[in-house]
Amino acid sequence: MTVPPEFDTLKAKLAEVYDVAKSAALLAWDQQTIMPAEGADVRAHQLATLGKLAHELFIDDEVGKLLEGLRPYEESLDPDSDDASLIRVARRDFEKATRVPPELSAEINRAGARSFTAWVEARRNSDYESFRPWLEEMVELKHRYVDCFEPGDDPYDTLLDDYEPGMKTAEVNEIFERLKEELVPLIAAARDAATPPVAGRFPALTQRQLALEIVRRFGYDDRSWRIDPAPHPFATSFATTDIRITTREPEDSLDGLFATMHECGHGLYENGVDPALQRTLLCRGASLGLHESQSRLWENLVGRSRPFWSWFYPRVQETFDDLRGVDEETWFRSINDVSPGLIRIDADEATYNLHIILRFELEQRIMGGLDLRELPETWNSMMHDYLGVVVPDDAHGVLQDVHWSRGGFGYFPTYSLGNIMSVQIWERMREDVTDIDEQMARGEFSDLREWLREHLHRYGRKFMPAETLERVVGGPIDPEPYLRYLQGKLARA
Amino acid sequence: MTVPPEFDTLKAKLAEVYDVAKSAALLAWDQQTIMPAEGADVRAHQLATLGKLAHELFIDDEVGKLLEGLRPYEESLDPDSDDASLIRVARRDFEKATRVPPELSAEINRAGARSFTAWVEARRNSDYESFRPWLEEMVELKHRYVDCFEPGDDPYDTLLDDYEPGMKTAEVNEIFERLKEELVPLIAAARDAATPPVAGRFPALTQRQLALEIVRRFGYDDRSWRIDPAPHPFATSFATTDIRITTREPEDSLDGLFATMHECGHGLYENGVDPALQRTLLCRGASLGLHESQSRLWENLVGRSRPFWSWFYPRVQETFDDLRGVDEETWFRSINDVSPGLIRIDADEATYNLHIILRFELEQRIMGGLDLRELPETWNSMMHDYLGVVVPDDAHGVLQDVHWSRGGFGYFPTYSLGNIMSVQIWERMREDVTDIDEQMARGEFSDLREWLREHLHRYGRKFMPAETLERVVGGPIDPEPYLRYLQGKLARA
Repeated sequence: MTVPPEFDTLKAKLAEVYDVAKSAALLAWDQQTIMPAEGADVRAHQLATLGKLAHELFIDDEVGKLLEGLRPYEESLDPDSDDASLIRVARRDFEKATRVPPELSAEINRAGARSFTAWVEARRNSDYESFRPWLEEMVELKHRYVDCFEPGDDPYDTLLDDYEPGMKTAEVNEIFERLKEELVPLIAAARDAATPPVAGRFPALTQRQLALEIVRRFGYDDRSWRIDPAPHPFATSFATTDIRITTREPEDSLDGLFATMHECGHGLYENGVDPALQRTLLCRGASLGLHESQSRLWENLVGRSRPFWSWFYPRVQETFDDLRGVDEETWFRSINDVSPGLIRIDADEATYNLHIILRFELEQRIMGGLDLRELPETWNSMMHDYLGVVVPDDAHGVLQDVHWSRGGFGYFPTYSLGNIMSVQIWERMREDVTDIDEQMARGEFSDLREWLREHLHRYGRKFMPAETLERVVGGPIDPEPYLRYLQGKLARA
Repeated sequence: MTVPPEFDTLKAKLAEVYDVAKSAALLAWDQQTIMPAEGADVRAHQLATLGKLAHELFIDDEVGKLLEGLRPYEESLDPDSDDASLIRVARRDFEKATRVPPELSAEINRAGARSFTAWVEARRNSDYESFRPWLEEMVELKHRYVDCFEPGDDPYDTLLDDYEPGMKTAEVNEIFERLKEELVPLIAAARDAATPPVAGRFPALTQRQLALEIVRRFGYDDRSWRIDPAPHPFATSFATTDIRITTREPEDSLDGLFATMHECGHGLYENGVDPALQRTLLCRGASLGLHESQSRLWENLVGRSRPFWSWFYPRVQETFDDLRGVDEETWFRSINDVSPGLIRIDADEATYNLHIILRFELEQRIMGGLDLRELPETWNSMMHDYLGVVVPDDAHGVLQDVHWSRGGFGYFPTYSLGNIMSVQIWERMREDVTDIDEQMARGEFSDLREWLREHLHRYGRKFMPAETLERVVGGPIDPEPYLRYLQGKLARA
């Protein structure tokens, strides 16, 4: 079947939507990195306008008609082809986007902006009660959002689908139960063997230099990438050839190296998407979970491994006087330490998952009707059960994360799904790149990067996350490899 | 009369157009300053999409209906009010924008992109003939563009109006004839008294530091401004509180200081617009000519003045070893030197105008049917007549500027109109700020800046350029003050 003109029309329309969305991404990047402070008010309007326009352009009736008219063409195609994927994914996105009345979307955005402001203030004062009315309003709005869709097995399925398309609550529950069962006792046992972080002073610019030495080996290159400092590190992209990563370098630790490796992992995913998908809605990672699998893979499976540090520790040690007396073994233990704490974003690789599981369970209870007056107490009691820590105040407890203020229920689980998938992908990669340890010990990462590009990155968003993972590892998501990895790590500690 | 709801609707629609246009400005700023090189292809698409959307949103039928429906409200208002100005200026813009068929605009843009590429190559090879077919096509398209409008006294009026609204070709001709009459002999006489530029090595970062010391006194502040290097310096803004200036600092001169003062002048205009006009199409300078009056005022009337250097030369001299033996008088003469040359952008303050007049006259002849095979010869002969220089090749002659490749006929004259108006404004300002010389000699510029804000900047684009100038200086554009200024300068040389 020849390509019908309707397909070119659809593609051109979707390319415009993509252009507007990526323009908004640039405005957001600029806002979070280099914008003069006083630019913030007008920038918020600009971002709202671009978001509204991208949405309106996408849910246009003509897009719907084109998608209907293209059914015969789609059926004539190999489902794996770029064209079939574009029509399929656009149809799924279109059906979701057109279910939500624009007034409700606008109300959620407005409520989110107000609620965010209230949350900033509440966290500053550690005053949950001042935030509760906003959270109650948001929960009500999210119920109205869920009601826009066909009822699934669980109302939470609808929320989860926005971040991890196709994933079901029941499946996450099963995976997380398994994680919890193993991790709670493991972590309780590990807490007595804690290795403190290595103390010292590590100037930010020197950290940046070292981080660049590392990520240039990973695949960062100046012709397609930039790195800038940002208060909350993130990665974004405006094309497969315009990748922006950000980092922060607190000078009392070398955490900046890990933040940069993490964001570089996100960047490599966007950079590795098949250029043929440029300016289509397929031109990004398949889900937040799969994206996180890549950032965690480079940060943890590479960046906290023995071979990596046998290559790079001498370079770090010669750079900082404060490390002269710290041998490689001590350094290695300190960066792989497992110690329960109060704050998710400061958590180590293992305990991090319990922070996530707690939020995932709470989100379901919140959507199930939990009286929000009881939320802090419930939070604190779960923190004690899962991590054995006592929460001193709400700023270090239920108010620590921004997500709920913006209505981001369903986002948190993707972090741990990413951890789990990262090890599945890593093990599969090792079957092909059998000498990866030796390569890393020589500071060589191009075989790894190219393997990931070939087996995962290039697909972009052509397939659903589960199908994408299946193509990489040959099976569904499975927590066992990750558990074995953590058990091995904790046994060595 | 109470504000009709149609006015709020119009204002909201125009604010969206503004948001999209300013988003495009950010994409362009990023592209010209910090974007990784490989991002260029996709960025061009993003810019084209935003440009198309802003245009489509603006020429929407509903905007036309709202503007018609608002006539009674407009008539009930003080014409000087913000609301009346917004309706008036929007109607003028709308009537212009809807006269040009979208297909023609698109064709001019496409031809401009191809022609630009051909020009880059032609200039590199100094091969005018390879560029001529593209220029011929562009001239043909500009004729079709002019034909979209009511015939004026001169077809060139239409082109001029895009850059200097309301200005007529006949008026510019008269002004430029007067300039030419005085300047050609003056410059010929001055060429024997040339003071060579001060030689030395001036590291870029040190120049940047000094430039920042200067522009911070002018009004640059870190909460609303940024400065970044760019190959071709420019200024842009995304809000009155988000001003981006750029600069270049060739290390064999201190030209970077003047480039930065120039761009700061543009930035102060945007920064000084009344915040009540934020996110409206009134929120920018009234014309390119008036904009240039501000950049030239700060670069030349401030930045090449004796009082300025009596304040700042000691600071510069203590910074650079190469200036130890250069006294203030020598420095002052070198930066005010008048020497005819081949290249417009390297020209001094006085000869610059002859470069402009030549282009203005040629543009009229080109639109009047000049055989483009004769263009280089005509150019070279005029350069000899006006500036007494011999053009060695087309790269240093007719191919030196980008403007024509993009179809920017009518742009050049605004540079000299800016020079002329800058001195009119300066003389009027001196009547109020009588001790401006003493202030500058102390490094104080806030009275000057606030005077400009109060008398010019705050109006933004509320009034036509001629009316805006009238409000500042009490009369029409007049070359005599500028001529007296140049005569005085050249007499001292």
